[in-house]
Amino acid sequence: MALNIAVLPGDGIGPEIVAQALRVLEVLKKDGLDMTFTEAPLGGQAYDQYGHPYPEFTQKICRAADAVLLGAVGGPQYDTLDRPLRPERGLLAIRKDLGLFANLRPAVLFPELANASTLKPEVVAGLDIMIVRELTGDVYFGQPRGIRTNEEGVREGFNTMIYSEPEVRRIAHVAFEIAMKRGKKLCSVDKANVLETTEFWKEIVIDVAKEYPEVELSHMYVDNAAMQLIRNPKQFDVMVTGNIFGDILSDEASMLTGSIGMLASASLNESKQGLYEPSHGSAPDIAGKNLANPIATILSAAMMLRYSFDNEAAATRIENAVKKVLAAGYRTGDIYEEGTKRVSCSEMGDQIVAAM
Amino acid sequence: MALNIAVLPGDGIGPEIVAQALRVLEVLKKDGLDMTFTEAPLGGQAYDQYGHPYPEFTQKICRAADAVLLGAVGGPQYDTLDRPLRPERGLLAIRKDLGLFANLRPAVLFPELANASTLKPEVVAGLDIMIVRELTGDVYFGQPRGIRTNEEGVREGFNTMIYSEPEVRRIAHVAFEIAMKRGKKLCSVDKANVLETTEFWKEIVIDVAKEYPEVELSHMYVDNAAMQLIRNPKQFDVMVTGNIFGDILSDEASMLTGSIGMLASASLNESKQGLYEPSHGSAPDIAGKNLANPIATILSAAMMLRYSFDNEAAATRIENAVKKVLAAGYRTGDIYEEGTKRVSCSEMGDQIVAAM
Ligand SMILES: [Mg+2]
Ligand SMILES: [Mg+2]
Repeated sequence: MALNIAVLPGDGIGPEIVAQALRVLEVLKKDGLDMTFTEAPLGGQAYDQYGHPYPEFTQKICRAADAVLLGAVGGPQYDTLDRPLRPERGLLAIRKDLGLFANLRPAVLFPELANASTLKPEVVAGLDIMIVRELTGDVYFGQPRGIRTNEEGVREGFNTMIYSEPEVRRIAHVAFEIAMKRGKKLCSVDKANVLETTEFWKEIVIDVAKEYPEVELSHMYVDNAAMQLIRNPKQFDVMVTGNIFGDILSDEASMLTGSIGMLASASLNESKQGLYEPSHGSAPDIAGKNLANPIATILSAAMMLRYSFDNEAAATRIENAVKKVLAAGYRTGDIYEEGTKRVSCSEMGDQIVAAM
Repeated sequence: MALNIAVLPGDGIGPEIVAQALRVLEVLKKDGLDMTFTEAPLGGQAYDQYGHPYPEFTQKICRAADAVLLGAVGGPQYDTLDRPLRPERGLLAIRKDLGLFANLRPAVLFPELANASTLKPEVVAGLDIMIVRELTGDVYFGQPRGIRTNEEGVREGFNTMIYSEPEVRRIAHVAFEIAMKRGKKLCSVDKANVLETTEFWKEIVIDVAKEYPEVELSHMYVDNAAMQLIRNPKQFDVMVTGNIFGDILSDEASMLTGSIGMLASASLNESKQGLYEPSHGSAPDIAGKNLANPIATILSAAMMLRYSFDNEAAATRIENAVKKVLAAGYRTGDIYEEGTKRVSCSEMGDQIVAAM
């Protein structure tokens, strides 16, 4: 049966970068990988057409899809809209609608781009970390929450950090399975010495580990993890953590690479249905100018093949094509350095298609 | 009236490094700064003498003091003790006893040591950030907390993130006052877009700011702050944040310097009584060998003069002496590089005393 892929170009540079990713996927299709692509609007694009950032039309297509490939959403022309109608709400809505609880954030630095980092090249060249962040729980969603005046008449703000056993179990399974597909090393990040929520998290992760005897499990406190990412980031393979720690650490790790235009991401639900998108935004300033870097979106398509479709060979084929093109010296403006060849968004697509 | 300083050498390298800091303070005393020093045990040293890591003898001396200068606590010989008797508990106990709610964590990188960082020298040389972390509230202390089985029979871990108005107000005042003594730039770190606790935090900080019109206040989300510390750390002067974000960001910032043996710290209460100590630990492996780096402790003494005693001139005099000695090429083993002069702990003290 054909793999059913919903394609959401979105706003700003979204359509340009998604177009290049589709060209790369078309190569695989021509070589026999059975895929269908159904386009739908999201974000500002959807608001313009349907008056809502995640309209019913798009909902139906996404729910029926095996995976969703997204460009980016947002633009200054939508900043004055009511909050529930803004493009970013479309993204929150699709995540919720599809039950995407596992956020996969790779921090990869191809050796050719090591100069882009603020860290010394020898510390980060070849970096390849996968951070698995729980996306639907923790203190970001816990109840009760709010701002109140307490019994002594003092105002206070409060939130609830909370994780239940099934929530931890399912994200732990995702992380162990990813570790099995990679270097078989998993580091669970907590603050178990202080927070009962993460003491409990650690206990459940240790229990799930019994089902993955091949994976080497370690544990690290979040403050130490924030340090170790700077001291020696290459010590990590897969990291798994809760929503708030994952928010902080995945952004920290992405910045180690110095090149956000290269970073893919994915969000999965329990049936491995996934949303795949670049980590960067819609870059309205360069939209429509054929200047954007399509590599993050192309690498997101590779993640889709690996994590939703279990097609390691096809994923690797795309990643190797990207490596070849970087090694040959082709660069979009955002990663350009003296001595390399500056290309447009579509020319970068040409090169990667040719290298496939 | 004489400034009354409690001196707690503690364990491991504690006595060696504190001895060098005292030699530096004695220079100021000889030049007319009226100080008295009263020694007391803390940590393992106190357990050995009194059977408790923060005995009454030490409590009395610390409570009566204007400031406390501490070396470090802990050692492998105490690892088998009951938790309440371990050296680290002495540290928690003194913090609580004195009501120390404001943790000051400088991240300073002298240009001469820029190579020690994993970041490129041009990104971190001359770094001088002060992170002000609230130390007694937030999700680390909030009630209710625990691990329970909920009404649906599901196990869950939970904690309460909470800040009251007086708690935020007092730490904000500390931060603004520190900003006034430095570059007059304060960045308050929150996650106000998601967490009501920090939305409330931000509201109060903005209110306190009215009393400090000279300070340029900015706000940053914690995930972005974790990135900006790597992308361009020199953009920051003073940062203020809650207990958990401060835990993560202050450790991240300290690692930017690559030389933990250089980093001072302080914890203050409402009457500016303070505990001053190096950020590093008791390093039992090199204890008693005259190899430790006393600079973090010496810089902690400088912080004491600045923040508890409002003596900017004396603080600067110590800091300038340290700079001079580093510029002259003197290095303890932990910061030694080829082409510099390797010295012992006491020889480093000699040099800094001479440079005063
Ligand atoms: Mg984030
Ligand atoms: Mg810490």
